Amino acid sequence: MKDEKEETEYTLLSKINSSKDLKQLKEEDLPKLCDEIRAYLIENLSENPGHFASSMGAVDLIVALHYVFDTPYDRLVWDVGHQAYAHKLLTGRKEQFKNHRTLGGISGFPNPLESECDTFMAGHAGNSISAGLGMAIADKLTPGNENRKTVAIIGDASISGGLAFEGLNNASNHPNDLLIILNDNDMSIDNNVGGLHGYLSDLTTSAGYNNIRNKMAIYLRKKGLLTEPRRRALIRFGNSVKSLVSRKQNIFEGLNIRYFGPIDGHDVVKLVKVLKEIKDMHGPRLLHLFTKKGKGYQPAEEDPTLWHAPGRFDPDTGERIVKDEKIHIPLWQEVFGETVVELAHKDERIVGVTAAMPTGTSLNFLVEKMPERAFDVGISEGHAVTFAGGMAAAGKRPFVAIYSSFLQRAYDNIIHDVAIQGLPVTFCIDRAGLVGEDGVTHHGFFDLPYLACVPGLSVASPADAETLRNLMNTSLSMNSPLAIRYPRGKSNIYDPKEKMRVLEPGKGRLAREGKNAKAAILSIGPIIKNAIEAADQLSKEGIEVDIYDMIWMKPLDLDLIKMISEKYSYIVTLEDGVLAGGFGSYINDFIKELPKRPEIKNLGIPDEWIMHGSIPQLQAKCGYDAKGIEKTIKDLLNSKS
Amino acid sequence: MKDEKEETEYTLLSKINSSKDLKQLKEEDLPKLCDEIRAYLIENLSENPGHFASSMGAVDLIVALHYVFDTPYDRLVWDVGHQAYAHKLLTGRKEQFKNHRTLGGISGFPNPLESECDTFMAGHAGNSISAGLGMAIADKLTPGNENRKTVAIIGDASISGGLAFEGLNNASNHPNDLLIILNDNDMSIDNNVGGLHGYLSDLTTSAGYNNIRNKMAIYLRKKGLLTEPRRRALIRFGNSVKSLVSRKQNIFEGLNIRYFGPIDGHDVVKLVKVLKEIKDMHGPRLLHLFTKKGKGYQPAEEDPTLWHAPGRFDPDTGERIVKDEKIHIPLWQEVFGETVVELAHKDERIVGVTAAMPTGTSLNFLVEKMPERAFDVGISEGHAVTFAGGMAAAGKRPFVAIYSSFLQRAYDNIIHDVAIQGLPVTFCIDRAGLVGEDGVTHHGFFDLPYLACVPGLSVASPADAETLRNLMNTSLSMNSPLAIRYPRGKSNIYDPKEKMRVLEPGKGRLAREGKNAKAAILSIGPIIKNAIEAADQLSKEGIEVDIYDMIWMKPLDLDLIKMISEKYSYIVTLEDGVLAGGFGSYINDFIKELPKRPEIKNLGIPDEWIMHGSIPQLQAKCGYDAKGIEKTIKDLLNSKS
Repeated sequence: MKDEKEETEYTLLSKINSSKDLKQLKEEDLPKLCDEIRAYLIENLSENPGHFASSMGAVDLIVALHYVFDTPYDRLVWDVGHQAYAHKLLTGRKEQFKNHRTLGGISGFPNPLESECDTFMAGHAGNSISAGLGMAIADKLTPGNENRKTVAIIGDASISGGLAFEGLNNASNHPNDLLIILNDNDMSIDNNVGGLHGYLSDLTTSAGYNNIRNKMAIYLRKKGLLTEPRRRALIRFGNSVKSLVSRKQNIFEGLNIRYFGPIDGHDVVKLVKVLKEIKDMHGPRLLHLFTKKGKGYQPAEEDPTLWHAPGRFDPDTGERIVKDEKIHIPLWQEVFGETVVELAHKDERIVGVTAAMPTGTSLNFLVEKMPERAFDVGISEGHAVTFAGGMAAAGKRPFVAIYSSFLQRAYDNIIHDVAIQGLPVTFCIDRAGLVGEDGVTHHGFFDLPYLACVPGLSVASPADAETLRNLMNTSLSMNSPLAIRYPRGKSNIYDPKEKMRVLEPGKGRLAREGKNAKAAILSIGPIIKNAIEAADQLSKEGIEVDIYDMIWMKPLDLDLIKMISEKYSYIVTLEDGVLAGGFGSYINDFIKELPKRPEIKNLGIPDEWIMHGSIPQLQAKCGYDAKGIEKTIKDLLNSKS
Repeated sequence: MKDEKEETEYTLLSKINSSKDLKQLKEEDLPKLCDEIRAYLIENLSENPGHFASSMGAVDLIVALHYVFDTPYDRLVWDVGHQAYAHKLLTGRKEQFKNHRTLGGISGFPNPLESECDTFMAGHAGNSISAGLGMAIADKLTPGNENRKTVAIIGDASISGGLAFEGLNNASNHPNDLLIILNDNDMSIDNNVGGLHGYLSDLTTSAGYNNIRNKMAIYLRKKGLLTEPRRRALIRFGNSVKSLVSRKQNIFEGLNIRYFGPIDGHDVVKLVKVLKEIKDMHGPRLLHLFTKKGKGYQPAEEDPTLWHAPGRFDPDTGERIVKDEKIHIPLWQEVFGETVVELAHKDERIVGVTAAMPTGTSLNFLVEKMPERAFDVGISEGHAVTFAGGMAAAGKRPFVAIYSSFLQRAYDNIIHDVAIQGLPVTFCIDRAGLVGEDGVTHHGFFDLPYLACVPGLSVASPADAETLRNLMNTSLSMNSPLAIRYPRGKSNIYDPKEKMRVLEPGKGRLAREGKNAKAAILSIGPIIKNAIEAADQLSKEGIEVDIYDMIWMKPLDLDLIKMISEKYSYIVTLEDGVLAGGFGSYINDFIKELPKRPEIKNLGIPDEWIMHGSIPQLQAKCGYDAKGIEKTIKDLLNSKS
């Protein structure tokens, strides 16, 4: 039934499995193909959710690129590749797309391990210019490859990051023919932008563009459409790298990158024409497109932020299918967001910093309440941390909310600009541990090893909302930096009126006591719930296990570990992070110094790349779901009995 | 005698210990003070070496800043602070400067732990704008501090890095009065620059500047002075962020940062005048100065690269005092440099990448031999790694040579743009371990923990030049990334004609055998020489120790460790890096899984910040000089006897 429907509806798309197939179409058929792709995306993403708005916006560009270039011989390098679903559909992955982001299915991001059409990993923003430049220069050095093409696609948010700038700044230093496509969908706040017809206009003639921007503001104001968020977006636009494109101050031309545009990124026929014209030119070039997030699906066009990753929805009505929640269990990020606001009310020194993730981290709670004390610096994690270091040096108490895997971008800043100086910055590290469907580039794998080895930086992870609140409160009475990590997903219901306590750094606690247990689990963070589930099950089978919530990886509770080592014969350590150099490893190091040393097993992420799937599936794969813990305890008890 | 000399020669400088003292001078006395500071720098740096050329170039700026601003209430934020020696002299550290960079003495870089006048750590380039912005915005939020001033000083090389760009891009998003000083000493290749008199010229009127640049090129060509390096410097200049200042494409104005300049950075009286005029203005501003490295000391003016950190020299003749070397023992970096050239001759896929350190890493050997295959990307470590990833994805074999502590800047790039994709990039990590006099910001502390936890990334460290060569050769037959770390300083004499071997990844070797030894040292890297020295001494005392050179931290030689655990009762692990999550810790983790488990002691850098001093002094402090190893072995043998 479904297959039949597909055959009838997707007359063009159904025939296309490669760039070669695509080239069989006539140019005038391309708009229909774009419509089919959008319909296919709506049909599939309404059932199996993913990144919606940006994928809809990039359809025409993707069709035009595969139509003009000989992919995969010619290389497309995506940036924050969740926009590239249409690329997956056109490169032989239509069927697999139905299960994308699920265990064993294809990834939600371009992934070179999945297809030769995916030339580079594209989970973290801003790398496409540097990577594409590497390929383009490599081809110039490779006999036979001199005319191979490389196209790096980058969005207007990504290009404001330091890595993209470094790439641009190096683009003209060595011979290459890199084509950069700036997919600019921030201008899409108004329909006027779609009316731009400056085709291949060199920016030296783009006074008209600036003009249009001014006209747009006037038009918006007249229509009463210049709302506060829009006004701020316009101001922000004026402050951003993109303003360099206007005012005849073209950053790209200044960096010796030839500039073309801006043109309408939804006119696929024109796009094909432009791409054909600039395809064989030499030297680094940039084509600037305006696109609209959510293009082709009205609800998403109207509220692209809500439709960034909307979850399941009714394709006909645009109604989002939200799970009915009788009682709202707060997300970890919400606990952070509520708490930072609460603390900021009490302590004037507190400021909040995030890097393009105010919604994802819930720092937007502070943005709403105290906009002057909340700082979203864009996709600039390094700056976020150094900026926070500067604020701390001037007496503030910054809370820096960044996802674990993105914080890798700021490693040196954490060391050099915070920790060496002992500055009291509180890192609130969201999405720590396995993140599920976003997969390998987004797991918060490494934060425990890469942070805990830095002197003077304390590292903790709360097992519940109350402890997160207490840790955040505790950081205010510490005169040194503290990293607090917590995962994606649900925390627990807590009483926001309960007074926050100051915890003693480096003090763990007994979380569950069995009767005369011979084994203990030493856990850090919310993963303790798996341990409790395992212990409850084992208890039914007559095996008693005590559980300790260590809370702190650094300082470690050495007294408690000493006591535990004396009391128990078997220890399991448990963490939602890599084993190598992790929490368990720190415990091993200490226990080896003790006179009495129990048998130890360490549970955590093994030394391999974990792809996507649901969090429970991935925990099971890593052996630290409740069943894995049960088995580990049983094996351990049997090993010496 | 010496003090007497000082009193007579430094009539002005001797009276000044603070910004307040400095303000007692008349403006017309300032040039003399600058002369005295330069004389003091020459006198002292000729005996106790340090960073010379850039420090000489910044004297007038530093005097002007302390004269105009109320430091330390007003904040000066330095960038790559080795230029800031004059700042130390003016802020009460004249006497201490005589022992700067030595154990217990003051640091060679600004250090907030040393003086309240040093507002922020300044060892890694490009952080001053972000940190200064944090301070300037914090002040606006702090009642009573609204008029406190912050000045961020940045060089023309630093400003091309991504972090500086992120700082600039965020500079106008929130109210602040940050003053940025761009100390531009790359233009100093010609004297014409010193003739610039565009005082407070807004850049919209700076066509003259562009003009001068063209005239300069013509002048150089006429005089036969447009040598190849100079021509390339000019081209590079054209490609760099600075070109945005010319051509009326002013990046700063585009980012809503008010621009002033360019002005002569050696006219201290004019500097004072300009700074007074712009001091109380509101909003972010940038003042662009031209200075000359080595200013005031002719040999340094003529060859600022050689005089960057010249070592000891004769102040009268400018003759550098080079230790007489009868036989040249190659530096580790030279072994790398020679080897990459040798391999590149054999394998066309090889390319070399570095980030502003061609001389420091000896990648300049490749730059000289095969300029088209050697890439210096400037102070852009993140781009360097992602760019190398792109090249590897296109079939090349990049060797990326970056210092250990600077590679922290590229952590996410290593993970996301290389390791997840399994791309065969060879990281040649120089200055790993303790680096000595450059101190806390420059030690290669963390690379073993932060790299070895990343799946699929192999990590090795050679004990000798031959092994470094073999490891580099081995990387070519691996189809995955490899990190090779080696320290600052001397390697050993080797035969460059000896054929390089392919090593088996994860295979260690017995390096020294005693007679019926009960204890073994498991070492990684050149630090093994301390182990050998210790073993030789112990042997004289009748204590036999075997030494294993493990070579690889990842993969670990599990078979060898198993054998060692069975054979010996006592093990000492030895590494030139932090203990937390390091090499010893990996060995502990494995040994705890074995049936027979020897007593283990781990030697390496403890969990504290190690400041500056000579490498032997610092190794002794950390307990892994030969004496420390001897003591550890003795204690271990006694512990269970």
